[in-house]
Amino acid sequence: MKQIVFAFLLIFSQIQLFGQSGYNLWTDYKKLDANVIATEYNFINSILVSNTKDDEVLNNTKTILTQNLSSLLGKSIKIEKQKKTGQITLTINKNALNIGNEGFTLTSTNNALNIEAKTSTGLLYGAFYLINKIHRSEKIKNIKVSESPKIQNRILNHWDNIDRTVERGYAGFSIFNWHELPEYEDPRYEDYAMANASIGINGTVLTNVNANAIVLRADYLDKTAALANIFRKYGIKVYLTARFSAPIELGGLKTADPLDPQVRLWWKNKIDEIYQKIPDFGGFLVKANSEGQPGPQDYKRNHADGANMLAEPLKKYGGIVMWRAFVYSHEVNEDRFKQAYKEFVPLDGQFADNVLVQVKNGPIDFQPREPFHPMFGAMPKTPLMLELQITKEYLGQGTHLVGLAKMYEEILQSDTHVKGKGTTVAKIIDGTAHDYKITGIAGVANIGTAFNSTGNLFGQADWYAFGKLAWNPYLDARNIFKEWTAATFPNRNKKLSDVSNWLLEHSHEACVSYMTPLGLHHIMAEGHHFGPGPWVDSLFRADWTSVYYHKANKDSIGFDSKITGTNALSQFHPDVQKLYGNLNSCPDEYLLWFHRVPWTHPLKSGRNLWEELVFRYDQGVTKAREMKTKWDAVESLVEKETFRSVRDHLIIQQKEAQWWRDACLAYFQSRSQLAFPVGTIAPPHEVQYYKKLSYPYSPGIKPKW
Amino acid sequence: MKQIVFAFLLIFSQIQLFGQSGYNLWTDYKKLDANVIATEYNFINSILVSNTKDDEVLNNTKTILTQNLSSLLGKSIKIEKQKKTGQITLTINKNALNIGNEGFTLTSTNNALNIEAKTSTGLLYGAFYLINKIHRSEKIKNIKVSESPKIQNRILNHWDNIDRTVERGYAGFSIFNWHELPEYEDPRYEDYAMANASIGINGTVLTNVNANAIVLRADYLDKTAALANIFRKYGIKVYLTARFSAPIELGGLKTADPLDPQVRLWWKNKIDEIYQKIPDFGGFLVKANSEGQPGPQDYKRNHADGANMLAEPLKKYGGIVMWRAFVYSHEVNEDRFKQAYKEFVPLDGQFADNVLVQVKNGPIDFQPREPFHPMFGAMPKTPLMLELQITKEYLGQGTHLVGLAKMYEEILQSDTHVKGKGTTVAKIIDGTAHDYKITGIAGVANIGTAFNSTGNLFGQADWYAFGKLAWNPYLDARNIFKEWTAATFPNRNKKLSDVSNWLLEHSHEACVSYMTPLGLHHIMAEGHHFGPGPWVDSLFRADWTSVYYHKANKDSIGFDSKITGTNALSQFHPDVQKLYGNLNSCPDEYLLWFHRVPWTHPLKSGRNLWEELVFRYDQGVTKAREMKTKWDAVESLVEKETFRSVRDHLIIQQKEAQWWRDACLAYFQSRSQLAFPVGTIAPPHEVQYYKKLSYPYSPGIKPKW
Repeated sequence: MKQIVFAFLLIFSQIQLFGQSGYNLWTDYKKLDANVIATEYNFINSILVSNTKDDEVLNNTKTILTQNLSSLLGKSIKIEKQKKTGQITLTINKNALNIGNEGFTLTSTNNALNIEAKTSTGLLYGAFYLINKIHRSEKIKNIKVSESPKIQNRILNHWDNIDRTVERGYAGFSIFNWHELPEYEDPRYEDYAMANASIGINGTVLTNVNANAIVLRADYLDKTAALANIFRKYGIKVYLTARFSAPIELGGLKTADPLDPQVRLWWKNKIDEIYQKIPDFGGFLVKANSEGQPGPQDYKRNHADGANMLAEPLKKYGGIVMWRAFVYSHEVNEDRFKQAYKEFVPLDGQFADNVLVQVKNGPIDFQPREPFHPMFGAMPKTPLMLELQITKEYLGQGTHLVGLAKMYEEILQSDTHVKGKGTTVAKIIDGTAHDYKITGIAGVANIGTAFNSTGNLFGQADWYAFGKLAWNPYLDARNIFKEWTAATFPNRNKKLSDVSNWLLEHSHEACVSYMTPLGLHHIMAEGHHFGPGPWVDSLFRADWTSVYYHKANKDSIGFDSKITGTNALSQFHPDVQKLYGNLNSCPDEYLLWFHRVPWTHPLKSGRNLWEELVFRYDQGVTKAREMKTKWDAVESLVEKETFRSVRDHLIIQQKEAQWWRDACLAYFQSRSQLAFPVGTIAPPHEVQYYKKLSYPYSPGIKPKW
Repeated sequence: MKQIVFAFLLIFSQIQLFGQSGYNLWTDYKKLDANVIATEYNFINSILVSNTKDDEVLNNTKTILTQNLSSLLGKSIKIEKQKKTGQITLTINKNALNIGNEGFTLTSTNNALNIEAKTSTGLLYGAFYLINKIHRSEKIKNIKVSESPKIQNRILNHWDNIDRTVERGYAGFSIFNWHELPEYEDPRYEDYAMANASIGINGTVLTNVNANAIVLRADYLDKTAALANIFRKYGIKVYLTARFSAPIELGGLKTADPLDPQVRLWWKNKIDEIYQKIPDFGGFLVKANSEGQPGPQDYKRNHADGANMLAEPLKKYGGIVMWRAFVYSHEVNEDRFKQAYKEFVPLDGQFADNVLVQVKNGPIDFQPREPFHPMFGAMPKTPLMLELQITKEYLGQGTHLVGLAKMYEEILQSDTHVKGKGTTVAKIIDGTAHDYKITGIAGVANIGTAFNSTGNLFGQADWYAFGKLAWNPYLDARNIFKEWTAATFPNRNKKLSDVSNWLLEHSHEACVSYMTPLGLHHIMAEGHHFGPGPWVDSLFRADWTSVYYHKANKDSIGFDSKITGTNALSQFHPDVQKLYGNLNSCPDEYLLWFHRVPWTHPLKSGRNLWEELVFRYDQGVTKAREMKTKWDAVESLVEKETFRSVRDHLIIQQKEAQWWRDACLAYFQSRSQLAFPVGTIAPPHEVQYYKKLSYPYSPGIKPKW
């Protein structure tokens, strides 16, 4: 017996020897501590499926429960046909009260658990809820939980190209190997589906918003169908991006005019073809008339014309159109902040009822911090989806540890005031404010071929947080961090947990400080967006440059969005205008988004603007250093390679935080000409030095226009 | 105790549940069968290091031995300081007889093993020899083995770009994450080094031959140094590709003329800088004046001028230049077969003594089958390296199972006749024929980010075979297959082993048959080279087309390389000319490389050429089908996901074999206008159908000129 144990020890240590870790994400359901099992979970013996017809999702739910509970509890948990004590009973009850179609109720006594749902998908979510609770060693006796997702469509957006490059991907390349599909199904597809299902994600857009028509070609639809077949049993629908000009490129038509009958017929036929292959196909995500993508405006039609053309043939199948509001065309000479609102708000009420308009969290483009997008609250008749970035294009890309849940929370809790105080963005997108019949949220995925899927281990926490907030946008970020930490570091050492949670909680503010404090935005290097570039001043469009946004000169810095400037502020509710528009009431965090401020203007801290800018950049660097110090202290508490990989990334983060601080302050000092405040340190180089640094091969393929 | 066993069983089954497999390659040193241990290896108890000073390689060798033997034997094998029975003794003896610097002697009795070597690297190879023998359950009692590599420089060539795309890579993307180096060291780097060391590979060129000067920039050299630090303890040197125009692009000079003093100084300084960071840097691989790459001919200098310029400053550090003979420039209007020979052979004797000229196996470009390159044997004063392709650009890319060792063996055993019958290519490149002072062999790597490194599991066998043949180019391919199979499928089931070996042994001939039988070559689709394209007829260069090579018309097919044609045949030794130049003695395998043959010409089989062509294509498809059938029969003998992934790839191979056969025969029939022989089946479509198929996103980034 000893020898057998030793053999398994060796097998296990062998796997450790090859130092990769993190593949299993937060679903690494290894056996729990024996004491915890004894106190809390020993009563669980088997699973009973109560008079319910089998389907694909239910079958899979049974497998998920038996395999993972057996693993967690260190004993064989099987499906049984007879009622016994210690059972987990699964029941589908179409008339269950107080839950939605994907919801579930979990009730437990001291020696039995019951999961009830209206659908097998509800049972799947209930099963994961239970497994995850046990995985985190939480109490499950005598509880009653009712959970339903507050948002219907909880969708990952992959900006993945057919050639497996990822437009803003920093974790390697696309996990979707189109070339070898449909024959070869990488096991990763199922692992990915399971991870998503475990946090409630129920849809995935497989392809880049800068779309390629080829994905609609018959052979590619077979490939998508193969993925759909894998994802279906995890309650996940697949979606594709529809290139607006596909009828020309693929169909050989002369136009893609959405009112042209031939064009409409082409799409109808294409959609019929898709549903023949994928009966539960989710629908399309469309980027049109933005950054060079084709769209209805090419034919003097509007966004509603374009979206409705696709929505009509999708409707009979239950498919949806997600039409992106991230628009700024080469032609329209409007301030970028304002353009989306101006194009979309007048169309409110004109979209078909299976169209959602997908709006980025802020008015510019996934900056480290943005005020909420003024479209939220401005389209009561059009379901607005929130689009968040999980990949960190402007937040340290693949290497920085930035707990994005704090940023998501900030956006979701932002108050639009449109139906009185407390009309948060969360209330807009979950449909309660305007009684939307259809709701959705999208996260631009940070998933790639990296062994642990996200490169930086803590990037997994951002994927996790997106899923949790998509299910319930009112959750507290700190609780999400705690959950993820408990699921990721299963030894539940308090010091390690505290450090993990601290890192997640403080890192977003740190990142904002060392990159874009005080409402600075869009000051990154051009193209790849890697590193600082506040000096960028001559690109094809003025609003691609940095100087357009900060306008720093000898006297002042900041963008006047008030009536004295672009008047973008007028797109918000009057109460918000009052808050942000007043230099005194505007939070420092958003200051330079709305105001042009003299360098010497005194802020709430008592420091003037220049001093505060230096102070914040220094604070960011200090925090980045502190992050590494904290992690260094847990070396003995975490698996060697996990420790090392997180530490190495924190070293990069610290180095780059310093670079951001030095480069930005060298540049802004060259504008302000003010001396560095006493006690602060001038950057070691002149701004010219930083301007010359070049990193042409930074990851993340740039879109080509 | 039972519970503990169960826990480990579960941990292990959990790892199986997440279905990835193959990460550990042929070094998956899990515990052997208890009976095998009892009979053969039980006497091994510990390791003794005999009066030898520690160094990095020796320390690592000790770790490798203790960890892997402990794992294989299921007991703790430790380093001890006292002599005891059952020990493996490691001894460095600078005066050891009959072995080279990297060689070792392994002697054993019934209760002791002794590994002796001149260097710690020799001990490292001895250790792996022993571990691998045990891993394959081979007898090790009372043996005496002396092993030294027959080739000094055994080098992988990565055609990996800085942005992680791989020029002809089909296993995902580059494992080298330049952006995150030097701080973040992916554990894969060390796993890769260990796999290479286990089969004797001692060098790696990290970057693409279509080179980028940036890799010589100071910050990139730090990244290379980080990799070198990991690889060093595995006896592996790093090399870089040197872009000939780097002095212009990086140094700001106006010229890269190899005789310009400033240019020479720039390279000298750059090389000094490299060796300060990487004291054991291996040297440069250079592609010059070929396919648009810059080179000495841009300045009216020759290849020796270019190579020697780099060789001079490398020499004092022991560095080498590997100068590629794969040249055909846009400007030179010479038949591609002949150009390399014509440019290089006249320079024999003019290269510095730390220069090797690296020659592809055949005269064109890694075709499924080529005659050996006529340069082998033609440069007695210049060490010639053999360049083999492990990645399968023209051999089914990432998906087809093709045991390349058979092809390598065919090349190595080809007889150049230059010093009499039996002067094989092996004898040229191991230096025995011409007494080369320096020897080398290169393999273009098939390694990528795929979980199992090669995509198709059997691609690992090609990497393995390259290492084994680089160590000893006289090895029998079938024995290499057996070794790999034993190391890869450790349950040693006879039926499974037989099938694995059968697949490896028969697949190359199958592939040649369904792609390019009878000496057809260069008839693939353009650009990505995925799939058939015998109709390709109008590209920038005539010798990029397919019709240039097969010249099929109504009467005949084939390329006349005799004196009546290009006279490329004259570049071979007269004995070879006699063999290949005579239509009757020329092996069918090489027929259309050298002869233009009427469709109705009778071959040895009794069939005429047209009939034989159809026969061979059909044979290829039949074999591909048989491969899948054989694999299907081992389903119960192999881990589920391993079975499935191999099967799925065999399905692709079978489908594509049929496609190659149908497309090529449809095309050639449109030339010959002959009826399909009785009993054979005409392709289901006209040639137009196959011409229209388009796969623009096939993997493998195409070089840009």
